[in-house]
Amino acid sequence: MKELALGIIGLGTVGRSVAKILKENQDLIAARAGCAIYIKKGAVKDLSKSREIFDFPITNNIDEILNDPEIDIVLELTGGVDTPFEIAKKALRNSKSLVTANKAMLAYHRYSLQQIAGDLPIGFEASVAGGIPIIKALRDGLGANHILSIHGIINGTCNFILTKMKDFGMEFDAVLKEAQELGYAEADPTFDVGGFDAAHKLLILASIAYGIDARPNDMLIEGITQITQEDIAFAKEFGYHLKLLGIAKKDGDCIELRVHPTFLPKDAMLGKVDGVMNAISVVGDYVGETLYYGAGAGGEATASAVISDIIEIARTKSSPMLGFKTTNHILKLKPIEEITSAYYLRILVLDKPGVLAKIATILGEIGISIDTLLQHNHKHYSTLLLSTHICKEAEIRLAVARISALEVVKAKPTMIRIEK
Amino acid sequence: MKELALGIIGLGTVGRSVAKILKENQDLIAARAGCAIYIKKGAVKDLSKSREIFDFPITNNIDEILNDPEIDIVLELTGGVDTPFEIAKKALRNSKSLVTANKAMLAYHRYSLQQIAGDLPIGFEASVAGGIPIIKALRDGLGANHILSIHGIINGTCNFILTKMKDFGMEFDAVLKEAQELGYAEADPTFDVGGFDAAHKLLILASIAYGIDARPNDMLIEGITQITQEDIAFAKEFGYHLKLLGIAKKDGDCIELRVHPTFLPKDAMLGKVDGVMNAISVVGDYVGETLYYGAGAGGEATASAVISDIIEIARTKSSPMLGFKTTNHILKLKPIEEITSAYYLRILVLDKPGVLAKIATILGEIGISIDTLLQHNHKHYSTLLLSTHICKEAEIRLAVARISALEVVKAKPTMIRIEK
Repeated sequence: MKELALGIIGLGTVGRSVAKILKENQDLIAARAGCAIYIKKGAVKDLSKSREIFDFPITNNIDEILNDPEIDIVLELTGGVDTPFEIAKKALRNSKSLVTANKAMLAYHRYSLQQIAGDLPIGFEASVAGGIPIIKALRDGLGANHILSIHGIINGTCNFILTKMKDFGMEFDAVLKEAQELGYAEADPTFDVGGFDAAHKLLILASIAYGIDARPNDMLIEGITQITQEDIAFAKEFGYHLKLLGIAKKDGDCIELRVHPTFLPKDAMLGKVDGVMNAISVVGDYVGETLYYGAGAGGEATASAVISDIIEIARTKSSPMLGFKTTNHILKLKPIEEITSAYYLRILVLDKPGVLAKIATILGEIGISIDTLLQHNHKHYSTLLLSTHICKEAEIRLAVARISALEVVKAKPTMIRIEK
Repeated sequence: MKELALGIIGLGTVGRSVAKILKENQDLIAARAGCAIYIKKGAVKDLSKSREIFDFPITNNIDEILNDPEIDIVLELTGGVDTPFEIAKKALRNSKSLVTANKAMLAYHRYSLQQIAGDLPIGFEASVAGGIPIIKALRDGLGANHILSIHGIINGTCNFILTKMKDFGMEFDAVLKEAQELGYAEADPTFDVGGFDAAHKLLILASIAYGIDARPNDMLIEGITQITQEDIAFAKEFGYHLKLLGIAKKDGDCIELRVHPTFLPKDAMLGKVDGVMNAISVVGDYVGETLYYGAGAGGEATASAVISDIIEIARTKSSPMLGFKTTNHILKLKPIEEITSAYYLRILVLDKPGVLAKIATILGEIGISIDTLLQHNHKHYSTLLLSTHICKEAEIRLAVARISALEVVKAKPTMIRIEK
C-alpha cells in the first residue's frame, strides 16, 4: 500500500482536529482512501506558543513544507486572505495538491488559484458549512442539473441569535452578549452579524453552481443588527420564520447573489433549522429541492470535511477534481436593483391623522401593492408593519427613501425581504 | 473530447427521464463529465408496447446491449430481483460499468455483484431516496467518520399516509385509498406500507456505512398498517412526530437494523419532514449529525441520481469507485431481541376494576418501567396508552405476549418504538 504525505499549515482548532481524526480513524480512512495517510510536518506561526505535543514534527518555517518534495498535499488551515493566498499559490506551483478551509481567501482569489492549479486538485469542502458535504453534493450529486436556486443558513452565529430572539423574546444586543460568552460570536462580531461571512460562503457555492466570478463588494449584503422583537412578532403573526439567508438565484442568464434577513414560510424545511445549525436548500431543474443540514462550524466537523477532500484526492490522483469551473456556460451577476422580492417594512411614525395615507400614496405611485398591514400604537408614535407583494429592489429602495423623507416618519424604515 | 456510450435496459419512468435529461442538459453534463455522453441503444421487453419515439435505436434483445463492445456503461433500470441480477452480472462479466436504480436486487445480491465487478465501477445512487445524493454523502462526504447511526424516512408512501393521518385526522384505510388515487401507492401496497421497501434501502445504506452483509429476512421489519388516530393523538399529546423510520445503529461490534413506526421528539429535524418527501439523518463520530432531504421518488429525481453516477464513472474511469466495501472492519448484525428502545403500547381492555394493576404487575415483573400513561374510556371498554423507559426488545415482546394473554385484554397490544 502506497502512502500519502500531508503538510499542515496552521494548527488551530481545525488543524488539531484533523491530526486527531487522522490518528483515531486511521484504519477506516486508509480503507476509504486506498492508501495510508500521514502528516509529515506541521507549521505554526510561533513555536513558543504551541504547547501541544504532536506525533509529527512542527516548524515555524512554512517553506519546509512547501518545498518538501515528499509532501503530496498541503493543508492550508490558517486565517486571513493574502498570506494564505501566497501559501496556496506556492504549494500549487510546487505541484502539491491543496486542501483549504479558508472561505475568505476563496471569496477573493478562487479563480486565480484555479488557474494556477491547472490539473492539480484543490479541495475546499470545509470552506462552506463545516461538516455538511455541500460542495460535493452541488458538484457531484446534483451534477445532472442546472441549479435554479440556493438558499442557505450558512452562518451559525446569526442563526443562534435569531433563534434565541424568537424563543426567549430577547433583543439583539442581549443575545449577542450571550453568544459571545458561549463562544458562538467573536469579540468583534461584525464579520458574522453583518452578513460578510455568509457572503463569502455564498460566493463559493455560486461559483460551483454557476461558474460566476463575483467578489463580496459586488453583492447585496445586509446583516441582522437591525432586527427587533417587533419583526419577530410579525413573523409569528403571519406564519413566517425569520432567518439570515445567503441566496443565489438563476434568472435567465443572470444570477442574483444576496445575503439578508429573510422571512420564510413556516412550512419551508429551511425555516425549521434552529440554533447554531446550518442548512442549505438547493433546487435543481430535474431533482427539485434537496436540503443539507448539519454543524456549520466547530473543529471536528470542519476537520471531517478537510479529510473527505484528502480521501477524494487520494482516490482520484490520476484525474483532476472538478474545481470552480463545472460548467461551460458562465452566468452574469444580476444588478442588485433588478432583484425582485416581496418586502416587509417596519416604519416608526408620529401618531397623527393622514400618516398612513401618505405612505400608501408613495407606495401606490411607485407601483408597489400592500399585502398585509399592522399598526401598533405607542404613547406619542405608532409603528406600521406592512408587507408588500413582489416588486423590484429599485422600487422598494425608492419607496424607503421617499418614506424616510416624510416629516411624520421618525427613522429610516427597516426593510426585510420575504421569500415565497 | 472522447465519448462515453451508454446502453439503457428498461425504458419506464426512470429510463425515459434519463434519456430526456441527458438530452436537455447535454452541455452541462459533458462539462462535468469531461466527455460527451450518448445513449447508443435502449432495450424494452415488448417493442409493440413502446409508443414513444426515442432518438436512439431500441431493441427487445438485451444481448445487443450486453454484447456490444462499444458500450461503456450499462444502465439497469428494470424492476424485480433475479432477472436484473442476471443482466447486471452479464454486463460486468463483459467488462462494462454498471449503473442501477434497483434496490430490491441490491438488497439481496449486492455483495455478489461487488465480487464480480472487481475494479469495475458500480453506481447505485438512485437505489436509495431518489434524487438525494445520500450514497455519495455517506461514502465520500462523511468518509472521515465512523457512522454511529442512520435514521431515514426512506419510503414516501408511508410518510404521505402518516402526514395525512396527522393533518386531517383520517384513518389509515382512507388515506391509503387517496394515496392510491394520487399514484403515491401501488394497487397492492404491501411492499411500501409493510416496510419492505424501506428495509431494502436501509440494507444498502448499512452496507456502505458498516460493510454489513445482511438480507431483508434477518431484519426487524414492521409497517404502518396498525397505526390509528389514537397513536397520532398520543404523539400530539406528548410532543412527538410519528414516522416510519429505517434505523441502523452501531453498538460496539454489532449493528441494529430495523424498520418500524417510530415516535420522534418534536424538535428533531427528521420529525419535521412531511408528505412524500424523504430525509436521512446520519450521525458520524466527528461530524455529528448531518441530514439530507429531498424527493425520494419520481422519474426525474431518480434519473438525476442515475446521471450523477454516470458523470462520476466518466471522471474516474481509471480508478475504481468505492462500492459496498468502504471499511476493513466488517460489523455483525445485532440480534433483534437485544435491541433497546423506549416503547409505546396501545392496549384495548375491558372496562373492569383491577385491569391496570394486572398490566402494571406484568411490566414490573419483567423490569420495564412506565414513563407516561393515558386512559381513554369508551362504552364497554377502555384504551390504555402507555410509554416505557428504555428496555430490551426481548423484554417488551415478553410483556406484550403476557398482556395479550390476559382475559381482560381484547386484542394484541399495538407497540411503537420511541426514539430518544
